Amino acid sequence: MMNLRKLGEFGLIDLIKRMTGESSGVIKGIGDDCAVLPFDRKNYLLFTCDMLVEGIDFTRRDKSDLIGRKSLGVCLSDIAACGGLPRYAQVSLGLPASMSVSRARELYRGIIFQARKFKVAIVGGDISRSDKLIIDVSLVGLVKKRNLVLRSGAKKGDIIFVSGELGGSFYGKHLAFTPRIKEANYLVNNFKVNSMIDISDGLLQDLGHILKQSNQGAVIFEDLIPISENARKSEEALYMGEDFELLFTLPLAEARRLQKRSMRSLAKFSAVGEIVNESCGLVFLNRQGKKVKVKAGGFTPSFQQSSVGVEKERAGFRHF
Amino acid sequence: MMNLRKLGEFGLIDLIKRMTGESSGVIKGIGDDCAVLPFDRKNYLLFTCDMLVEGIDFTRRDKSDLIGRKSLGVCLSDIAACGGLPRYAQVSLGLPASMSVSRARELYRGIIFQARKFKVAIVGGDISRSDKLIIDVSLVGLVKKRNLVLRSGAKKGDIIFVSGELGGSFYGKHLAFTPRIKEANYLVNNFKVNSMIDISDGLLQDLGHILKQSNQGAVIFEDLIPISENARKSEEALYMGEDFELLFTLPLAEARRLQKRSMRSLAKFSAVGEIVNESCGLVFLNRQGKKVKVKAGGFTPSFQQSSVGVEKERAGFRHF
Repeated sequence: MMNLRKLGEFGLIDLIKRMTGESSGVIKGIGDDCAVLPFDRKNYLLFTCDMLVEGIDFTRRDKSDLIGRKSLGVCLSDIAACGGLPRYAQVSLGLPASMSVSRARELYRGIIFQARKFKVAIVGGDISRSDKLIIDVSLVGLVKKRNLVLRSGAKKGDIIFVSGELGGSFYGKHLAFTPRIKEANYLVNNFKVNSMIDISDGLLQDLGHILKQSNQGAVIFEDLIPISENARKSEEALYMGEDFELLFTLPLAEARRLQKRSMRSLAKFSAVGEIVNESCGLVFLNRQGKKVKVKAGGFTPSFQQSSVGVEKERAGFRHF
Repeated sequence: MMNLRKLGEFGLIDLIKRMTGESSGVIKGIGDDCAVLPFDRKNYLLFTCDMLVEGIDFTRRDKSDLIGRKSLGVCLSDIAACGGLPRYAQVSLGLPASMSVSRARELYRGIIFQARKFKVAIVGGDISRSDKLIIDVSLVGLVKKRNLVLRSGAKKGDIIFVSGELGGSFYGKHLAFTPRIKEANYLVNNFKVNSMIDISDGLLQDLGHILKQSNQGAVIFEDLIPISENARKSEEALYMGEDFELLFTLPLAEARRLQKRSMRSLAKFSAVGEIVNESCGLVFLNRQGKKVKVKAGGFTPSFQQSSVGVEKERAGFRHF
């Protein structure tokens, strides 16, 4: 009898996708950072959720305040990836009865910190008892129709960018990242962004999602990748995941225009490669200009072992 | 150091409510069955979520298909309680890696069954690994502005009704109930419903929520309460919870009008009491016409022992 470990997360997501099918009246359902739904003449509704589980997405030793920030932060990162602004959140908590009230208060303080920072109203939730701490946040936002960016819009010749720096997230940043709402809105309001995703599974795996949904290939140059000073190996910037930076593509002329601007209040944007023919697949060129075979899979398939080997027990979450 | 068991769920919800505060642009935030948010000229957006935890809201022995139905069903029941229609759902799953694929498929089949029945599009979700099975569904719906019903609208002289039959839910119905979407929409489209809630904590406790938020009292007549044939003691109809029936109040003339109609395709509606002055509190008259002291608390405070004693380990979930 096959179990979920064997099927793997992507297998399960494919299964769910097949079972669910498509629904009329849905602009974009399963398969992007957010669901995209009708709202009014000028805007779409964005809808996303993320579940954090103790021992998987954080440990009991992590600061409650930071766990709270992360729980809303990962949803904010999804709204950013679609070019939208967040509005309303629901917070479901599974809490151990033995948890101290002060720890619960700290957790919620972290959630409220993020909510205020990004103008999100916490409008409800649910509480259940659970042996392990579970936080599931669902978030509704809005995006101007002309600003909506999906994973599926990358075009041949597009320049591939990332925001901020990659790698080393598991040594701390995965709990204390800044969701790139401001950066994403700057981009979609000023540039023609063809495709975008947030880096939760690792640069190469998330780029893989864009390529698959856009029917394109890509060339990535190792020496262009902005590596975080927290990274212990440069490989982490490719595979580690949970960077929660933006990965996006712009037509060449737009890319040139972006590179001329410098916005001090925003994370920097780095060009890391180019979209090419689908038949080329995903080509990774190392510092010596040599093609390196890209490992299959990113860092965070929850039901399987990670391919990198750093903190194997911390397998992340996965949207579908 | 105080822990959550000691603080209790309502204590925690109060704490969260105080910490969160109110947000501008939110019609109704924490404190009703759904959050009520701006949508368009004629409609409000409804937004709710419910988390089910293995060992609390269901057991490992329960059928996966029914667990799936329940997970969406409890959210549907919230939308019903506000007089709305459901639209889009996100499903977060915490799954044991050892779970068989066929069991996961069954679970999802139950979710899809409910979704199709009530015309809900499943538009996304999240998967995480978890020792125990966790399902958190968030649901967005719409309600016509003139149809919106909250807990806070009960008026002196209103007749108190329930749909269907109460009690015995934990012997099976809590997994296999019919969310009262049809009944609720029939009511709000044809009658002036002053207040409504779904019975998740037990008749008396949920009525208590209406009374508190409406600043009213109530008299309930034991012999008017429709007791399910599944109930083993009539007390279960008062305290057990997880009936997921509607509890609502109508002005007298509307109540008379409702009682004259009979809709064969709907669950029956039973008058069980009357709204009275707040100073009377909640008065419960037994079959002998004697006042009986109402027990504090309902069945499902997750962090505490239940007051009834049937399946103590199955403490439910709680909205806020």
